Amino acid sequence: AIMDLTFLGTASCFPTPKRGVSSTVFRHDGECWMFDCGEGTQIQLMKSKLKASHITKIFITHLHGDHLFGLPGLLCTMSQGTAEAKKNKIEIYGPWGLRKYLRVALEMSRSTFNFSYVVHELIHSPVDLPSDWTEWHPNHEADDHHHPQEEEGRNIEMDVDEECWLLFEDKRIKVKAAPLTHRIPCFGYVIKEKTQVGKLKAGYLKERGIPPGPLYAKIKDGNNIVSPTGQVITPAEAIGPSIPGRKIVILGDTKDSSRMSRIAHDADILVHEATLNNEHVEKCLEAGHSTPAMAANFAASINAKSLVLFHVSQRFKALNEPTEEGEETVELLVQQASEAGYTGQVVIAEDLDTITIQRKI
Amino acid sequence: AIMDLTFLGTASCFPTPKRGVSSTVFRHDGECWMFDCGEGTQIQLMKSKLKASHITKIFITHLHGDHLFGLPGLLCTMSQGTAEAKKNKIEIYGPWGLRKYLRVALEMSRSTFNFSYVVHELIHSPVDLPSDWTEWHPNHEADDHHHPQEEEGRNIEMDVDEECWLLFEDKRIKVKAAPLTHRIPCFGYVIKEKTQVGKLKAGYLKERGIPPGPLYAKIKDGNNIVSPTGQVITPAEAIGPSIPGRKIVILGDTKDSSRMSRIAHDADILVHEATLNNEHVEKCLEAGHSTPAMAANFAASINAKSLVLFHVSQRFKALNEPTEEGEETVELLVQQASEAGYTGQVVIAEDLDTITIQRKI
Ligand SMILES: [Zn+2]
Ligand SMILES: [Zn+2]
Ligand SMILES: [Zn+2]
Ligand SMILES: [Zn+2]
Repeated sequence: AIMDLTFLGTASCFPTPKRGVSSTVFRHDGECWMFDCGEGTQIQLMKSKLKASHITKIFITHLHGDHLFGLPGLLCTMSQGTAEAKKNKIEIYGPWGLRKYLRVALEMSRSTFNFSYVVHELIHSPVDLPSDWTEWHPNHEADDHHHPQEEEGRNIEMDVDEECWLLFEDKRIKVKAAPLTHRIPCFGYVIKEKTQVGKLKAGYLKERGIPPGPLYAKIKDGNNIVSPTGQVITPAEAIGPSIPGRKIVILGDTKDSSRMSRIAHDADILVHEATLNNEHVEKCLEAGHSTPAMAANFAASINAKSLVLFHVSQRFKALNEPTEEGEETVELLVQQASEAGYTGQVVIAEDLDTITIQRKI
Repeated sequence: AIMDLTFLGTASCFPTPKRGVSSTVFRHDGECWMFDCGEGTQIQLMKSKLKASHITKIFITHLHGDHLFGLPGLLCTMSQGTAEAKKNKIEIYGPWGLRKYLRVALEMSRSTFNFSYVVHELIHSPVDLPSDWTEWHPNHEADDHHHPQEEEGRNIEMDVDEECWLLFEDKRIKVKAAPLTHRIPCFGYVIKEKTQVGKLKAGYLKERGIPPGPLYAKIKDGNNIVSPTGQVITPAEAIGPSIPGRKIVILGDTKDSSRMSRIAHDADILVHEATLNNEHVEKCLEAGHSTPAMAANFAASINAKSLVLFHVSQRFKALNEPTEEGEETVELLVQQASEAGYTGQVVIAEDLDTITIQRKI
């Protein structure tokens, strides 16, 4: 169950030839889930080792262009190649307005696909409407007519008890979302791997005359088995401790991540924006963003094992770039997060970096 | 009056790290007009010597994504920097549906600008509707509510006598459009520099005692002047032959450019797509595209001085790229256009190439 995160774009606001805008791909046994899709993401993907055809789900944190404008083009390019409709449905999650944005982009460009897609919208709380909503409140509802390859999506309401949105669940993994405070409705996503059955004590079973085979599967499934000598062996004695699932938290833009705490606590990896350095905290807050100290404080508050900083201003040069007088590299952000009192590991994500998420045992 | 063309993206269909999708910038005494804006154009612009702040007009040939999806992001990035509304209005021209596409992209992403913009739509003929329009005919009209920085645009009807659309005219330059045959409504643009007053015969005037000064301007404006000795000098005798204006023709995707002939004849430079080589003519026609031979034949038919090929399939490697067995470079396209019987100059545009358009005298 190999899990990794590839950072296709780590810039805030606008892309440059050196750094793309937001897109992060979570890979789980080869299946790829994309988080955000700023302009140029399809090009960044081609530079990476990932394949666009392995993308099955796309999660959009919020509709600012630097997280969104690459989505129509990516879907079009994913549809290139063989003409037969052989691909699975692409599931896309995001805030109110995403369905309309995508549908209109595809309708006006008359783009059709050899796969179907569906957009599920997370219905935000009224408190998260933009501050100038009264002055400017465009219609965010898509009209009645679906795109030819669009299936009917869900409008996902918040679970009042859990104060979160449950988006997806299967035998192995669960995805939830909670709100962040930004200039427009914005979500953070939590990927939680379910507790896995522990390792089989192969030596213990071998001693009792049970070789690898169908009885291994049977006992791993929770059933007693009987050895050649008639001895009953229970799962409890033959299986090691359960392996806690990994938790990956990927946030959108935020100046206050506290509403994520309930579902993000004890994350193995927290991916959090750090748009400007601590000295620019007022400018950050005004734009709905975070400093490294703010990211670190949140990481500490949820006992995250590691903190990955991303969505950085283009003013910060890359780690390996030479700097002139007055210029800083992203190392400054790592430094400031580390100095804030957070004791976990702090890492800066640069374009095309891949981080493996280790199992706990 | 320096004029040049910079090819920011020369690929058909989808961008790669090596070649961007369609965008061409016409520069005239520093002022930049952009033709098409595929995804990633703002990044390509940063790699060029051009400045986004010098863009005053944007012309979209048709709404396929590879010509369009970079537009919202480009405008957002042009609005970065100083907060004061100091920039001029950006005028955007294109087919029916462009206004809605742009407005919805900006509304849903809640993007605002420190300049105003306006979208003028060219109203195409019913014959150019997509072949499956009856089956799928999404609403291409923008609703009643403008974007906060959007001014009221014109819906430009075809001039029935001229069989073209007159888009813009000032003292020095005129821009017209005519339809191309593609899968969706698509236009070619003709930039025509007006005939310029000839050069002043400085030696002739000096001999008659008239030095450089206000009298130069006066006679150049078409007025008689009087020399110190009382001699009347007319514009006709003191000014050389008129300088014919330059004509630049930039086409969108096309499988038949004949409807451009009336306004494109005698172009100094014709920029025409050549998506696939001659051997793939059937595939080209099916997709509404051209081969090099088709481009060359059109260039010959309008007596164009030079033909620039662009919008090429990504299968063609760049001129300076090594090729393996079975691979071709874009040189094949130049070759095939030259062999088609067209006697003008044939050039292949590669990303970031700049071509100067020489004055006729
Ligand atoms: Zn952002
Ligand atoms: Zn944002
Ligand atoms: Zn095209
Ligand atoms: Zn096209």
